[in-house]
Amino acid sequence: MLRKLAMSTIANTGKIVPNRALFQNISKDVWSLTNEAAAVASQNAQNQNRELINLGQGFFSYSPPEFAIQEAQKALTSPLVNQYAPTKGRPSLIKSLLKLYSPLYGKQLAPENVQVTTGANEGILSCLVGLLNPGDEVIVFEPFFDQYISNIQIPGGKVTYVPLHPPKEISERPTQGTEWRVDYDELRRAVTSKTKALIINSPHNPVGKVFTREELLEIGQICVDNNIIIISDEVYENLYFTPEFTRIATLTPEIGQLTLTVGSAGKTFAATGWRVGWIVSLNPDLLKYASMAHTRICFSTPSPLQEACANALEIAVENGYFEDMRQEYIRKFNIFTKVFDDLGLPYTKPEGTYFVVADFSKVKIPHDYPFPEELQSKAKDFRISYWLINELGVVAIPPTEFYIPEHEKVAENLLRFAVCKSDEYLQNAVERLKLLKNYI
Amino acid sequence: MLRKLAMSTIANTGKIVPNRALFQNISKDVWSLTNEAAAVASQNAQNQNRELINLGQGFFSYSPPEFAIQEAQKALTSPLVNQYAPTKGRPSLIKSLLKLYSPLYGKQLAPENVQVTTGANEGILSCLVGLLNPGDEVIVFEPFFDQYISNIQIPGGKVTYVPLHPPKEISERPTQGTEWRVDYDELRRAVTSKTKALIINSPHNPVGKVFTREELLEIGQICVDNNIIIISDEVYENLYFTPEFTRIATLTPEIGQLTLTVGSAGKTFAATGWRVGWIVSLNPDLLKYASMAHTRICFSTPSPLQEACANALEIAVENGYFEDMRQEYIRKFNIFTKVFDDLGLPYTKPEGTYFVVADFSKVKIPHDYPFPEELQSKAKDFRISYWLINELGVVAIPPTEFYIPEHEKVAENLLRFAVCKSDEYLQNAVERLKLLKNYI
Repeated sequence: MLRKLAMSTIANTGKIVPNRALFQNISKDVWSLTNEAAAVASQNAQNQNRELINLGQGFFSYSPPEFAIQEAQKALTSPLVNQYAPTKGRPSLIKSLLKLYSPLYGKQLAPENVQVTTGANEGILSCLVGLLNPGDEVIVFEPFFDQYISNIQIPGGKVTYVPLHPPKEISERPTQGTEWRVDYDELRRAVTSKTKALIINSPHNPVGKVFTREELLEIGQICVDNNIIIISDEVYENLYFTPEFTRIATLTPEIGQLTLTVGSAGKTFAATGWRVGWIVSLNPDLLKYASMAHTRICFSTPSPLQEACANALEIAVENGYFEDMRQEYIRKFNIFTKVFDDLGLPYTKPEGTYFVVADFSKVKIPHDYPFPEELQSKAKDFRISYWLINELGVVAIPPTEFYIPEHEKVAENLLRFAVCKSDEYLQNAVERLKLLKNYI
Repeated sequence: MLRKLAMSTIANTGKIVPNRALFQNISKDVWSLTNEAAAVASQNAQNQNRELINLGQGFFSYSPPEFAIQEAQKALTSPLVNQYAPTKGRPSLIKSLLKLYSPLYGKQLAPENVQVTTGANEGILSCLVGLLNPGDEVIVFEPFFDQYISNIQIPGGKVTYVPLHPPKEISERPTQGTEWRVDYDELRRAVTSKTKALIINSPHNPVGKVFTREELLEIGQICVDNNIIIISDEVYENLYFTPEFTRIATLTPEIGQLTLTVGSAGKTFAATGWRVGWIVSLNPDLLKYASMAHTRICFSTPSPLQEACANALEIAVENGYFEDMRQEYIRKFNIFTKVFDDLGLPYTKPEGTYFVVADFSKVKIPHDYPFPEELQSKAKDFRISYWLINELGVVAIPPTEFYIPEHEKVAENLLRFAVCKSDEYLQNAVERLKLLKNYI
């Protein structure tokens, strides 16, 4: 059915002004830049006869567990499961989340303590949209997950950056996540009368740090003293390799009343494309604002995938899936980081997440390497990443994207590698990275 | 693993101030009120031996077509289909959308003309978040879909209401959607220097009106004259019963350059719980802001369900699914509206959507009926709805929820019924509604 377009001779001269807060700097984001560089590099002479190895974005190279897939396929056969889920989440998923988290929170949680969201990203946005008024400030630790910034800006919030200070010897020896430190006085000085919330991420992307009980108590107390809401991004909660993983919400009743904790089925079940996440809070009066915002942002979360997660969580709690996954990742990190040990390249030993940050100060990259124009204005790590893709065929993420320009110097020699890949894929990555010895 | 909660004696006295723009009036929304009333009413004496018939919310009582379910089940078996989709949407779905829409737009569309979103709701929000700055005004026709209002408020926009005037004889005889009219002078007067966008919904929920080519040209030209972006909510695009369905974006090149059109796989495939939608625009420079906002709001849309929609659209284009669906709904409306004809209750004959609005002026509801306290402050249609649930066991939506309080008088005798239900279910509804004769 072709329709004839009506003709008109007057050209529309109107200019489109977008949302200024959100698009202050419309420069290409790290994901686009890296993906585009990879697409071009895959055709170059060095890469012609080998596959690119992509350890950039944190997607899994393997499938969700078979039991989760089966539950999703089953869910699709039920008519009503294909229709709108309740905005709070499917009762089955709420029930599974209560079963999972009640023991971890040390008390029986009720349905009003959880809200299902369309991925953890939309969960964090829902917290911020529910709570912020224009001009409210939100404290974010640097390096930060880049989506936090725009999620704060959407409801008109302002970001206050507090550094996570890297270990002094980061370029000299392998370090621990624990060695990345918060200066509590600096944090206190960042608080103003407009500070409404603080976002903390533990286990931390990209540093791999698991905040200790003592650190979380200090940070939590500063929030309690100043009535600051804590948004705790715990999407890597099942990937910690330290003796314990502390949930900030459980530390004191006062901290618990101020905390919204965000979790992710995508990270838990290697299903980042399912977009199922949740918010847990001991304070239903706080959570209700996030719930109401979620209803307005996404209305409800994909229903058959919620049903799949509900049943998969029940199974996972029973069959030791979480502990198996942890052991699997300890093995994956061992496979992968050995190459840095052998090369003598320093890296931050991950205490959690599936990321590892390596320091490339010792790698000699030719000064006259033909970098594209758009990388000249970026920090050095963007050029290291470009060189690594083109010369070794390995994709990694330049972490200065997780810093504001004034502070990016501290990360300019680092690259972030994701190990959520099959063992074989990681072995291939190691073989490729061994070639770095020619440049050290 | 139970954790001991640390004790503290200082109570947190902090007050939580939510997003004021979004939660100006935290009264219960129509969906919660109706669902709660239904839950209570299902236990009352009249309903004890019969099932409640729910024609309230617009979810389908039946499954998506078998070919769509099969495609979803198949998609889940591919490892990478379970991981993050590209933020633009899966290439397969973009391809299917181009194939579907190019003939309808009368030109070959390119990938930069489409953006996949997490349902149409998030599509509209992405348009607004991408384009609005605080204080920008958006024109909305009344009655409106309630989510528009909060979607405008999230990025700090202000709503300007322009009425869709109902037919004068709405309480006297069956009327047509066409008889609900826009006063163009009134629309022009609503435009200010801050007017950034206008939202139009055709086929229209709840009125069932399909805007004519002439109406859309008038509205479009007012937008062109004032450089107003048109957000065209066409989620019911496959449910029109008029000889033609006009897409505003196709009317003139100038209108096309200003228009973002939102579509929905949920409505198209009876899969409201899948949360897959899209935005189509002839103007990639306009669409890119919505795309960037979508990346920040949801990052990406559920990947296996995108893949299912991609393949299901290909099949639907070939097998006549859309025309079959249209015929099916003409039949469903015939089954359902006969009861109003027989009772002599006026209603708006639907030109599109799966809703019908009936006028209950002639129905005598006892003045001393025991309505709950929370309905006393609401318009009369909330009490008619409550009475209908309790006395006849039929759930319908009071449409004054789609009006601002100052204007709700025009809709206080109406109820909205959804016919996206199985024929048998609709027959049962008709039997139940026949009991209205005792009250006329």
